[in-house]
Amino acid sequence: MGVDGMVLPEEEHPVKAFGWAARDPSGILSPFNFSRRETGEEDVKVKVLYCGICHSDLHNIKDERGTAKYPMVPGHEMTGEVIEVGSKVRNFKVGDKAAVGVIIGSCGSPDSCHYCAKDLENYCSKRMLTYNSMYYDGAWNYGGYSDIIVVNEHFVYQIPANLPLDATAPLLCAGITTYSPLRYFELDKPGLSIGVVGLGGLGHMAVKFAKAFGAKVTVISRSLSKKKEAIERLGADLFIISSDADQMKAAVDTFDGIIDTVSALHPVMPLINLLKPDGKLVLLGSKTIESPVAIGERKVVGTSVIGSVKETQEMLDFCAKHDIISDIELVPMDYVNTAMERLEKGDVQYRFVIDVGNSLKTA
Amino acid sequence: MGVDGMVLPEEEHPVKAFGWAARDPSGILSPFNFSRRETGEEDVKVKVLYCGICHSDLHNIKDERGTAKYPMVPGHEMTGEVIEVGSKVRNFKVGDKAAVGVIIGSCGSPDSCHYCAKDLENYCSKRMLTYNSMYYDGAWNYGGYSDIIVVNEHFVYQIPANLPLDATAPLLCAGITTYSPLRYFELDKPGLSIGVVGLGGLGHMAVKFAKAFGAKVTVISRSLSKKKEAIERLGADLFIISSDADQMKAAVDTFDGIIDTVSALHPVMPLINLLKPDGKLVLLGSKTIESPVAIGERKVVGTSVIGSVKETQEMLDFCAKHDIISDIELVPMDYVNTAMERLEKGDVQYRFVIDVGNSLKTA
Repeated sequence: MGVDGMVLPEEEHPVKAFGWAARDPSGILSPFNFSRRETGEEDVKVKVLYCGICHSDLHNIKDERGTAKYPMVPGHEMTGEVIEVGSKVRNFKVGDKAAVGVIIGSCGSPDSCHYCAKDLENYCSKRMLTYNSMYYDGAWNYGGYSDIIVVNEHFVYQIPANLPLDATAPLLCAGITTYSPLRYFELDKPGLSIGVVGLGGLGHMAVKFAKAFGAKVTVISRSLSKKKEAIERLGADLFIISSDADQMKAAVDTFDGIIDTVSALHPVMPLINLLKPDGKLVLLGSKTIESPVAIGERKVVGTSVIGSVKETQEMLDFCAKHDIISDIELVPMDYVNTAMERLEKGDVQYRFVIDVGNSLKTA
Repeated sequence: MGVDGMVLPEEEHPVKAFGWAARDPSGILSPFNFSRRETGEEDVKVKVLYCGICHSDLHNIKDERGTAKYPMVPGHEMTGEVIEVGSKVRNFKVGDKAAVGVIIGSCGSPDSCHYCAKDLENYCSKRMLTYNSMYYDGAWNYGGYSDIIVVNEHFVYQIPANLPLDATAPLLCAGITTYSPLRYFELDKPGLSIGVVGLGGLGHMAVKFAKAFGAKVTVISRSLSKKKEAIERLGADLFIISSDADQMKAAVDTFDGIIDTVSALHPVMPLINLLKPDGKLVLLGSKTIESPVAIGERKVVGTSVIGSVKETQEMLDFCAKHDIISDIELVPMDYVNTAMERLEKGDVQYRFVIDVGNSLKTA
């Protein structure tokens, strides 16, 4: 017990765990002893080998959303290896590669929940986020910047054999968050003209998926410096500098869909103008529209949040088939604070992944 | 010829025509002699019997969009009888009932136009509006507040036998404008919860269509006075006063789709909040969004403009099958200026229709 009678994180559950946690809104991460629950009947215990650093980890550790509870172990893009399974687990065995993403639970009541009934756990009002949330049993959830995690098997994914574990980790958030709307909004048909706004963790995945679906892909960015990488490295077909009025004007009425991954509040009217009639603008980063916005003809502005369990597995299988992985910079655990500083400046191509398995050392 | 050498409207074409026209932005309409082209090979000449008064007629005669050219004969919701057909006309014969709507032309080049290729003439960049526009041959177009109109048969519709001509006229704009998005945005499935904002010409048609599709329909309005008519007269299931915070709060997260027919600029965020995840807000009146707007989960804000030729015929057939007509107030031609004043005040249930055939008297 702690000095004030509260249960210490390391004594809350029977299984010792270790990771790095933020302690306050400075967001500085440091070694942290805590615990995980015993592996229940339907649970899979995963030894975390790699964990991506998502932009939302940065928002959360600094409490930019006002929802932080400390200590906070971030991380919702995990790949690793199954080290224990509950008696009723059907789809995993010890030694399997496995992945865990942004959600680890939903109400799961198809009778009462429209979304769980439709396999859309990510829109269930009782969906459970992987960290900085309270589990159904009242225990606090800690994320993937840690040695192990225990998750109901429904929210654990199979990793196809040909996918490398490190560069697969970001698929669990950046990947599915871009794959799902491309599919849902029917922007996955060959021959479409697709724009991708912002070339970060999400944007670079959107380019890869759109190309794999057979689209003509244009990256729309504020910085000319990204042109070379967009075209040569990621395979985009075209590049538009959003500050260039002539380029933007020439592109009016040319896109079937635009995936907008920019987090900062920004005007969307110039993007809506780039859509053909029947075109769709999908907001993934900032879902707040500055206005006024005048949408003409038949057009759609849509939003999307992560993706379902089914879609996530489908996405991983799609990646295996089309040789799609994230472009990553692999860093050791004790580099995480520096990585956060660099991420804040946009200084990464395109996702930091923590080499948890090889660099997380028990304090 | 006119005194200044310009061709007079009544001498522009060989066929004499007569209607009522606005002469300046006062919007006052008065008798007007003009002319129509000879019935071409693919043309149908229709004797106009009824013409609805659309809200956009009011905007146009007063030049509120800054695009008016006078004299202007408004009217794009016509029903009548075929009195002449061109030699290559295949689908109409003299004596047929026929309808003409908002568009009377498009580029019609499936090879070069994505929209014409997909039978979406209403989104063709060269679509031709029925009035206040210049035809492909350089002649000015005059609308349905007139005795006859000559239109390419592709843009003329068959009227099923059981539909009354007067109450069918508004289907050509108010009807198709609400039917098309209900279909396109897949809000036509039985059992959905559909909201209709604004109970005017468009709104009352949206209620009727949504009911016919099997939805639970809620009218969302600013005025309690409309509750009785919404439920008793139009068959809506529920009514919400948008100014009642408690009612709006109770309805959060309950709609699969909302058809917003309000023309005036208004906040849409309270409506977006009423949507379930995967819900769709369709803006038909004002397509300008005040902001900021924050769209959460997976939601869609979409727009729509009229409907295609194919959809329009389908809509008329659907109306015949489901006994759907517009609720109208039939008025004589010389009542049109009073009707416009009343329309401006929202004083009509729900569409004025001019009894052109019986009341238009040659000057």
